[in-house]
Amino acid sequence: MNARRRVYVEGSRPDLRVPFTEVTLTGDNPPVRLYDTAGPGSDPEVGLPPLRGAWIAERGDVAPVRGAGTPLAGRPGKRPTQLAYARAGQVTPEMEFVALREQLPVELVRDEIAAGRAVLPANVNHPESEPMIIGNRFLVKVNANIGTSAVTSSVAEEVEKLTWATRWGADTVMDLSTGKRIHETREAIVRNSPVPIGTVPIYQALEKVGGDPVKLTWEVFQDTVVEQAEQGVDYMTVHAGVLLPYVPLAVDRVTGIVSRGGSIMAAWCLAHHEENFLYTHFDQLCEILAAYDVTFSLGDGLRPGSIADANDAAQFAELRTLGELTAVAWEHDVQVMIEGPGHVPMHKIKENVDLQQELCHSAPFYTLGPLTTDIAPAYDHITSAIGAAMIGMFGTAMLCYVTPKEHLGLPDRDDVKAGVIAYKIAAHAADLAKGHPGAQAWDDALSKARFEFRWTDQFNLALDPDTARSYHDATLPAEPAKTAHFCSMCGPKFCSMKITQELKDYAARGMADKSAEFRSGGGRVYLPLA
Amino acid sequence: MNARRRVYVEGSRPDLRVPFTEVTLTGDNPPVRLYDTAGPGSDPEVGLPPLRGAWIAERGDVAPVRGAGTPLAGRPGKRPTQLAYARAGQVTPEMEFVALREQLPVELVRDEIAAGRAVLPANVNHPESEPMIIGNRFLVKVNANIGTSAVTSSVAEEVEKLTWATRWGADTVMDLSTGKRIHETREAIVRNSPVPIGTVPIYQALEKVGGDPVKLTWEVFQDTVVEQAEQGVDYMTVHAGVLLPYVPLAVDRVTGIVSRGGSIMAAWCLAHHEENFLYTHFDQLCEILAAYDVTFSLGDGLRPGSIADANDAAQFAELRTLGELTAVAWEHDVQVMIEGPGHVPMHKIKENVDLQQELCHSAPFYTLGPLTTDIAPAYDHITSAIGAAMIGMFGTAMLCYVTPKEHLGLPDRDDVKAGVIAYKIAAHAADLAKGHPGAQAWDDALSKARFEFRWTDQFNLALDPDTARSYHDATLPAEPAKTAHFCSMCGPKFCSMKITQELKDYAARGMADKSAEFRSGGGRVYLPLA
Repeated sequence: MNARRRVYVEGSRPDLRVPFTEVTLTGDNPPVRLYDTAGPGSDPEVGLPPLRGAWIAERGDVAPVRGAGTPLAGRPGKRPTQLAYARAGQVTPEMEFVALREQLPVELVRDEIAAGRAVLPANVNHPESEPMIIGNRFLVKVNANIGTSAVTSSVAEEVEKLTWATRWGADTVMDLSTGKRIHETREAIVRNSPVPIGTVPIYQALEKVGGDPVKLTWEVFQDTVVEQAEQGVDYMTVHAGVLLPYVPLAVDRVTGIVSRGGSIMAAWCLAHHEENFLYTHFDQLCEILAAYDVTFSLGDGLRPGSIADANDAAQFAELRTLGELTAVAWEHDVQVMIEGPGHVPMHKIKENVDLQQELCHSAPFYTLGPLTTDIAPAYDHITSAIGAAMIGMFGTAMLCYVTPKEHLGLPDRDDVKAGVIAYKIAAHAADLAKGHPGAQAWDDALSKARFEFRWTDQFNLALDPDTARSYHDATLPAEPAKTAHFCSMCGPKFCSMKITQELKDYAARGMADKSAEFRSGGGRVYLPLA
Repeated sequence: MNARRRVYVEGSRPDLRVPFTEVTLTGDNPPVRLYDTAGPGSDPEVGLPPLRGAWIAERGDVAPVRGAGTPLAGRPGKRPTQLAYARAGQVTPEMEFVALREQLPVELVRDEIAAGRAVLPANVNHPESEPMIIGNRFLVKVNANIGTSAVTSSVAEEVEKLTWATRWGADTVMDLSTGKRIHETREAIVRNSPVPIGTVPIYQALEKVGGDPVKLTWEVFQDTVVEQAEQGVDYMTVHAGVLLPYVPLAVDRVTGIVSRGGSIMAAWCLAHHEENFLYTHFDQLCEILAAYDVTFSLGDGLRPGSIADANDAAQFAELRTLGELTAVAWEHDVQVMIEGPGHVPMHKIKENVDLQQELCHSAPFYTLGPLTTDIAPAYDHITSAIGAAMIGMFGTAMLCYVTPKEHLGLPDRDDVKAGVIAYKIAAHAADLAKGHPGAQAWDDALSKARFEFRWTDQFNLALDPDTARSYHDATLPAEPAKTAHFCSMCGPKFCSMKITQELKDYAARGMADKSAEFRSGGGRVYLPLA
């Protein structure tokens, strides 16, 4: 039997089955259940089964856009969003799924969504997705960016990256494709994705106008949003807070505007001498998103791209506007999260979360890193995992990964894994620091296995069992070493854990009742070492 | 010309020359000088030149132990330590070297050493070392552990790891060898090391008694300390705070005692029913260390080895004792730093520094990580870089690296590099967060190069130029791409930096005087995009 296998916890109905990875341990140690993002596994030619299909249909508030089949959209006057349901006091199967997954009360899930403090991204046209929640009261989530660029990659490669990213624990995936075949790439990704998919629609809109930001219009953008919403995109980054008056604030920065969407909108605003059309048409945009339950990810187009630019006037001016837009979106029953930086030195990280929570009415924060220094291209998964762990501890709900290729090139499969692993570490470290119920059980089980020299259990519990095992085997490959009470780091004589185990055994043989004496100071034990 | 080359800043005497790596940049950008730990380069057969030889001799307070030549020790009644000199108001060449290296006033260096808030580890028998300082007011330092174990490695390999570690920025190196040929390995390391060398003498003492902790004696330990001090070891980890009454406090932990030295001393204490001989002979030990200017690194033998055990009674009981011992060492003019954990969740990190500073009278703190979660064996350079950056920000003076092989095996050359790089990132992120003068200049220079598409400058400024360049070239290898205004991540049309550059150009052509209008809200520019 494989020691790691998928198990399902069934909810109130037979089609509500929540996946976990169950790790079977040796001896009388109880199995450990880990959150599982990998999905049931799909054949790229067929796509995943529509897990949520019946749930969506049963609610009766959506209808086929073109008379029959898919895509679906809200019936006239209906807003089929999880926010609308939560506000109405309704517990959806999606909420129940999330509650079982997080091992928290379903009322908490519903109330946090209703208050806007959490989002459950779940487009009615992406029934393949397994519900997950993003909010400060829940496990910190990780997003992985994939997608083609004009220079490199293919559709098949991107689907493989998606599967690879969710295998290692990505909670959502953003398809940031910008080259040819954007629609086709996205279709393949959505149909095969067990996790919510995010996009930045302005990228495709820009392709539609030949790559010239000046030629962008609200109409082209609107068409693109509808196209993507009908495909099943679960959340969309919209740079509606890059206002014309803010652009000059960014001009004298060390690194100007580093958000692609932000720079595109800034260019449009300046060229037309007009306010950002995403801002001026925001109400219309809300109504579109409400019809499919697409969640807003309000983009931080003016996020800092260097340590020098962190927490500056441009960044915080935009954040204030994102707060205004949050309130507008909520009026339309649209779920909202807020994107954050970027590059921020450690001592300026907390201010970002505090201000975001205040200005954006506690909507979930979703940050890119932040990178805590600019000096280490090729290691920005590490420079940013530091910032991500900290900002997660302070209350950020989802962390967008950064890969080793950041600033240098498009991530490949290995980079995707390196980024996801670094961010799962950051997210879990934040869960521990926040005291998330149950988070530490994983650490405790692994540490107990380590202390008891249950090497195989330790590997199976590891975030990346394959690599942990291969590193161990690099110096002690023999099978007996898997039960040895030492490793090559210290060798048999110097293993502190082995010595402590022996101390523990002596203690068990009689030291226990001497402990009180010891604690009162200077007591002696009468247990000679063998 | 190589864009990265070693330059020297000369001090008040011609034999006082402080190395820097100077990075020459293109265009009219001024060169950037980086702290350089690599040393002048040595032929392992010959060893390094005795940089400090004359400085040590000139002071006239040491004499050959065996009548002539080396090793040296303090003359009767003399304590040739940097602490004694600083307390006497004396500025040594070592202090001046450090001041130039840190670009800080030499009086600050002297005063911090005199107050015990900083150490300058500099054994009179290690004249090859380039002076460096460890203290909260200075750049955060990084230690790399190397050394053979009974299972693997050779002397030549260890010298190569030493050179490799200092090439990537290790500020000190600890030789933790525990197998055969400990003396020979250490000799080769010290003679070839441009950085201070630390050891844990109990390891060799244990070898001398056949590996049985019960057979350890003060006499064997004392002989070992003298042997290592005569070789030139600059600082020694001594687990004098593992007191008999504290051992039971660690028995019920999830991971017991994880320090090798700590477990050895705990075993000795219990077996003999006696107090730790390192504690009972501490005054004598101080006098030995004072004679060579060996710095104490008071070991945390009861540090937590898992998240569950962090900040517990055992750990903090020992820390209190280390505070007492600090005061004793200072009475003997011996420099002291204090070792710290280990495994600590993020929300418990600050307490470690605050308590250490309070209990240990502001002696410098030197921590191993800490790891912020236990779940990621094979990635503990990352789990711990998070904790290291934070604890550095809170005031830890030196960070002991953790490599990807931690808990799994002995690090090889690649692991040493991965560990050093992760920790240089953590240390520099901490320098930024502490506002260390000049720290951000490096980030700013690199970010400016990035924004201006000076790819070659960006690579040359990177912490690891080789890897940054190779990652870029993986997708855009052609030489013209080195001047291209984009990379494969976004491709030419979507590069935000390129668009911002264009915005900046428009701004320069006339938007400047419109900025005031913009800032007053809603102003418009009249500069169409080309």
